[in-house]
Amino acid sequence: MRYIDLRSDTVTNPTDEMREAMFKAEVGDDVYGDDPTMKELEEYGAKIVGKEAALFVPSGTFGNQLSLFTHCNRGEEVILGDDCHIVAHEVGASSVIAGVQLRTILSNKGELDPKEVEKRIRRADEDIHFPGTGLICLENAHSNGRVISLENMKEIYDIAKKHNLPVHLDGARLFNAAEYLKVDASEIAKCCDSVMFCLSKGLCAPVGSILAGSKEFIDKARKKRKLMGGGLRQAGFLAAAGLVALKEQVKCLKNDHENAIFMGEELSRIKGIEVRKEDIHISMVFFSIKNTGCSSEKFVDGLLEKGIKINGEENGEIRFVTNYWVTREDVIYVIKCVKELVK
Amino acid sequence: MRYIDLRSDTVTNPTDEMREAMFKAEVGDDVYGDDPTMKELEEYGAKIVGKEAALFVPSGTFGNQLSLFTHCNRGEEVILGDDCHIVAHEVGASSVIAGVQLRTILSNKGELDPKEVEKRIRRADEDIHFPGTGLICLENAHSNGRVISLENMKEIYDIAKKHNLPVHLDGARLFNAAEYLKVDASEIAKCCDSVMFCLSKGLCAPVGSILAGSKEFIDKARKKRKLMGGGLRQAGFLAAAGLVALKEQVKCLKNDHENAIFMGEELSRIKGIEVRKEDIHISMVFFSIKNTGCSSEKFVDGLLEKGIKINGEENGEIRFVTNYWVTREDVIYVIKCVKELVK
Amino acid sequence: MRYIDLRSDTVTNPTDEMREAMFKAEVGDDVYGDDPTMKELEEYGAKIVGKEAALFVPSGTFGNQLSLFTHCNRGEEVILGDDCHIVAHEVGASSVIAGVQLRTILSNKGELDPKEVEKRIRRADEDIHFPGTGLICLENAHSNGRVISLENMKEIYDIAKKHNLPVHLDGARLFNAAEYLKVDASEIAKCCDSVMFCLSKGLCAPVGSILAGSKEFIDKARKKRKLMGGGLRQAGFLAAAGLVALKEQVKCLKNDHENAIFMGEELSRIKGIEVRKEDIHISMVFFSIKNTGCSSEKFVDGLLEKGIKINGEENGEIRFVTNYWVTREDVIYVIKCVKELVK
Amino acid sequence: MRYIDLRSDTVTNPTDEMREAMFKAEVGDDVYGDDPTMKELEEYGAKIVGKEAALFVPSGTFGNQLSLFTHCNRGEEVILGDDCHIVAHEVGASSVIAGVQLRTILSNKGELDPKEVEKRIRRADEDIHFPGTGLICLENAHSNGRVISLENMKEIYDIAKKHNLPVHLDGARLFNAAEYLKVDASEIAKCCDSVMFCLSKGLCAPVGSILAGSKEFIDKARKKRKLMGGGLRQAGFLAAAGLVALKEQVKCLKNDHENAIFMGEELSRIKGIEVRKEDIHISMVFFSIKNTGCSSEKFVDGLLEKGIKINGEENGEIRFVTNYWVTREDVIYVIKCVKELVK
Repeated sequence: MRYIDLRSDTVTNPTDEMREAMFKAEVGDDVYGDDPTMKELEEYGAKIVGKEAALFVPSGTFGNQLSLFTHCNRGEEVILGDDCHIVAHEVGASSVIAGVQLRTILSNKGELDPKEVEKRIRRADEDIHFPGTGLICLENAHSNGRVISLENMKEIYDIAKKHNLPVHLDGARLFNAAEYLKVDASEIAKCCDSVMFCLSKGLCAPVGSILAGSKEFIDKARKKRKLMGGGLRQAGFLAAAGLVALKEQVKCLKNDHENAIFMGEELSRIKGIEVRKEDIHISMVFFSIKNTGCSSEKFVDGLLEKGIKINGEENGEIRFVTNYWVTREDVIYVIKCVKELVK
Repeated sequence: MRYIDLRSDTVTNPTDEMREAMFKAEVGDDVYGDDPTMKELEEYGAKIVGKEAALFVPSGTFGNQLSLFTHCNRGEEVILGDDCHIVAHEVGASSVIAGVQLRTILSNKGELDPKEVEKRIRRADEDIHFPGTGLICLENAHSNGRVISLENMKEIYDIAKKHNLPVHLDGARLFNAAEYLKVDASEIAKCCDSVMFCLSKGLCAPVGSILAGSKEFIDKARKKRKLMGGGLRQAGFLAAAGLVALKEQVKCLKNDHENAIFMGEELSRIKGIEVRKEDIHISMVFFSIKNTGCSSEKFVDGLLEKGIKINGEENGEIRFVTNYWVTREDVIYVIKCVKELVK
Repeated sequence: MRYIDLRSDTVTNPTDEMREAMFKAEVGDDVYGDDPTMKELEEYGAKIVGKEAALFVPSGTFGNQLSLFTHCNRGEEVILGDDCHIVAHEVGASSVIAGVQLRTILSNKGELDPKEVEKRIRRADEDIHFPGTGLICLENAHSNGRVISLENMKEIYDIAKKHNLPVHLDGARLFNAAEYLKVDASEIAKCCDSVMFCLSKGLCAPVGSILAGSKEFIDKARKKRKLMGGGLRQAGFLAAAGLVALKEQVKCLKNDHENAIFMGEELSRIKGIEVRKEDIHISMVFFSIKNTGCSSEKFVDGLLEKGIKINGEENGEIRFVTNYWVTREDVIYVIKCVKELVK
Repeated sequence: MRYIDLRSDTVTNPTDEMREAMFKAEVGDDVYGDDPTMKELEEYGAKIVGKEAALFVPSGTFGNQLSLFTHCNRGEEVILGDDCHIVAHEVGASSVIAGVQLRTILSNKGELDPKEVEKRIRRADEDIHFPGTGLICLENAHSNGRVISLENMKEIYDIAKKHNLPVHLDGARLFNAAEYLKVDASEIAKCCDSVMFCLSKGLCAPVGSILAGSKEFIDKARKKRKLMGGGLRQAGFLAAAGLVALKEQVKCLKNDHENAIFMGEELSRIKGIEVRKEDIHISMVFFSIKNTGCSSEKFVDGLLEKGIKINGEENGEIRFVTNYWVTREDVIYVIKCVKELVK
């Protein structure tokens, strides 16, 4: 049975073109620097975000944590939003691997108030009681489904530079943000010193993310990647799929976004369903079914019976995520099923 | 020259009674459990806050960090106020020693919103992406000079118990809070599982703090204190002064508080000086000299010439701290000097 | 140009059968537990070493460090050989990720003296100055090319059990050891509680290793794998190649070993070359060219010109490693080239 | 009842002169740099070992671990003897606080083979698999009671300098070593970049040790001392006793050593007792009572009844430690009691 899978954009299986590319990939031992496909991906990955160099990592969490580990000395502070992925969904890794102190700020739907950021910056040499700030982290698109404005990012980046601090961007869904903002990914990456973006998720590659930054930063990160167990051998297979993701699949995100907006519109017409339409920036639709009388469990199970996979409620909301394998017809079918279920 | 020292309550020299007690103290090797004066202090320290057991530690920071290290597994989250001492003034130690992830909340003048606390609590087994919450930290009296209400503490403590979580209280100035609230210190300590309080600061002992909690907790902490280099030998000397602090000096805090209120009142009458009178709960007076036309540097230097030591502005405010060695006459003299300086 | 690559068994490119299996692999989001090929690999991986459960990890270093991180509490001691891979070639990761104290023993060509192991075991509760021992690590086949006897492993395992301690086996080349000892891999794995073995290296899979142990251990490790950034999505591609490695390629190791012995024999007949023939247990041949008058640099460059890739001298020795892609004819050609070079 | 306490030199109570000095000590808030007695001690402490600067720390373990934490980056390797105090008796702290990887060497009665040391030195940039060596640690006098020769120390120090590495000396009993070698403590300290020595132990001060090194090193260490909770307030009391220790008590160590030799000689004449006479370098006498037929428990209890405190057997040996409070008459009395007990 074919399922329509709305749980996340991480569930996206690779495309046929990716399978083809993997099958034919020329590979080598990448720890020895011998994998030509990986080299191509890392060069392409750097270029696409306008950075000097890039490094393949096994996952987005790996890339973010490697970035913290590379930018910061142990014991330094990292300023970031309380609801960002690094804080919320990376198992507390920052306190284990980088060994840094998180200084979380209440965000406004993912956006940080530049004044609040600046207030928290401090230097180790101003006071014997102070740790120094080591890094500021931003996230765009945010895992809450929204895209942060370039203005906000620039303002924070300028503050960082004024204080001589690096900025890392968790760009797991960087190309979704670029699509929404109608700019090049490199335009967004101008507001950071390092950026991590995923080849999997909406871009459909099976495994892997890219960490990009200055050559010096990436050299340092390469060594620390080995320490973290991320030195892979014939990783060119994954790189081959990654190249298809960056060259072909990025073009398809527009469609995912349109499907999400369409889905949000249609859901909002169903009685009792409240959709946060203003927050549909990328492929994610958040809505509440509280007033339909249908419970989360019944909703999940009912849709599963009709061949639709979704996750249960989180913080009182359901999330539907469109992706490459979800067509407009699928969306229409989903709407039909939801209507039947909550009527 | 005798100075009036308003920089902090940490500057308090020991009393003659303390010197006497130290001189006569019976001591032994405390790592072998042979120091009778230390034993007496630890028993008295536990009793005074209504806990089963207690442990001497070299400083407040040591006690707080030891508590985090003992309560939490590495990688767990600690929920606490963004402006509390552990976050702001302990050099980022939590990410080095305990290795925990701080989850900071914007406090309302030191007070945490119980709902905001509860929202951040999570269990490692609910989601593979989640670290578990390991601890909630409160601070009373807060290092911002205010005392947190018992109601607020109880509400948070109840939430903690509902989620089966421990609460640690940074009570560096616990007895100041007790004096302000007109309750026993043990009444405040009912809202926590462990509490650290300082023998130095307003209580005038030269060195040391107490960490108190359940017997099991203290046994575990004793081992970890050794790891952190806090296993002292003939520490009974410090304990002797500590016993005087707890038995005699606690009675003098009332006077420090009254002097602070008097000082705040008098300062507020000086043109251009704005005193946060509503925040004078203990021995600290915060005020702004912005409208006096006198700069922070000139203010500090001018008072020093008159034999008064103060710290420079922090966040746009001056802080005066009364203590055992600052008499009412001293306060009157200080007011006179300030008037001369800003007129 | 086709090279004969003798630098390591990590350089082995995947077989056609692996490419085929990857091309056809059924995959899914493994963080959601949806990847059927990964499930199959993990089940097969557990079975082949006689353990309850298994987990795919991106590399051997990842698997070893994850095992330390899962077995030990931070600050505990790990007893292991001074020359083992975890100490020598994992970038000091044990002090960063697991946060454990290594207690290294001088090994006898990779073999640990059981008495020396037992002498270092200690319990945290015997003495306030002691950390507790958390783990003993063995390595077989050793990265020095030798295979440790089952007797030695059993003796150490019995000591571990007497002291209620777990044993982890770094079995990066476990199947080479099994081939040498003419036993099942599971026979070797009986002497440990957890074992890591590589799918890449001599078995030719492109990426990945397996960590196997009790169900409880693997459940705990799965969570910590996520923390370390090793939660992959459609990893079934790598699993598909891994299954070929475990089902087919293991049979080819015998050939690699025979080629190594033949190579050692032939090299030893060349004047000036001294081969450690007694240490050729698996696919590695160590020898010295000191007495040939040919420098390490000239040796490396000379062979490269003839299409043979080797690493430079380490500790005064050259290492040749045979692998699946090195045929008997290749070995004969290599010998011929070496003769020309050193005559 | 007055006990003769032979358990350790840590049990030494302060002298009357120390109590007097503490009583009269001028003190201040040392975190503010206001404690004149502490300043005097730190200056004197630096001078006595020929270093630029020094820092008071609460214990020997604190000083050693602070030194590791200050010299090394996290993840670096520390080369040191398997039986040294940092490995054996500091609760595994090096893996928690400094976060370094210990590379232990089997020592020859506390002395390290310079060749074995050099063999383990490595640079992070030579190989992507290598951590870098960050520090070499020596210990003199060794906690096994022996003094390491200056020649051995110099040889290792020269190797360290050749590789541009720092050397830390655990000199908990530095002045015992100086007494044995009949040289100035500064002569020994020439073979290291930082040295920790204890004011307590044989020198009788109640609490504290000194960490000395270059001004830059000590500045860095002062900040990290605060992080570790070692920033004390009116610590001048402890400094006052420390100054007496360094100025007066050092002269008394000669007597302790003579008493130990006398005790060893006399014990060795008792039938069944085997004394390691060649290892009596300082105040420690190690011997076996195996052949007396008297058990360790009976030995401990029997002596306690006669007013003599000792520890139980460790590694099959009893240790007697002389100290300032053990007179020649006490030693004669002890010998008499032992004779009665084992006859």
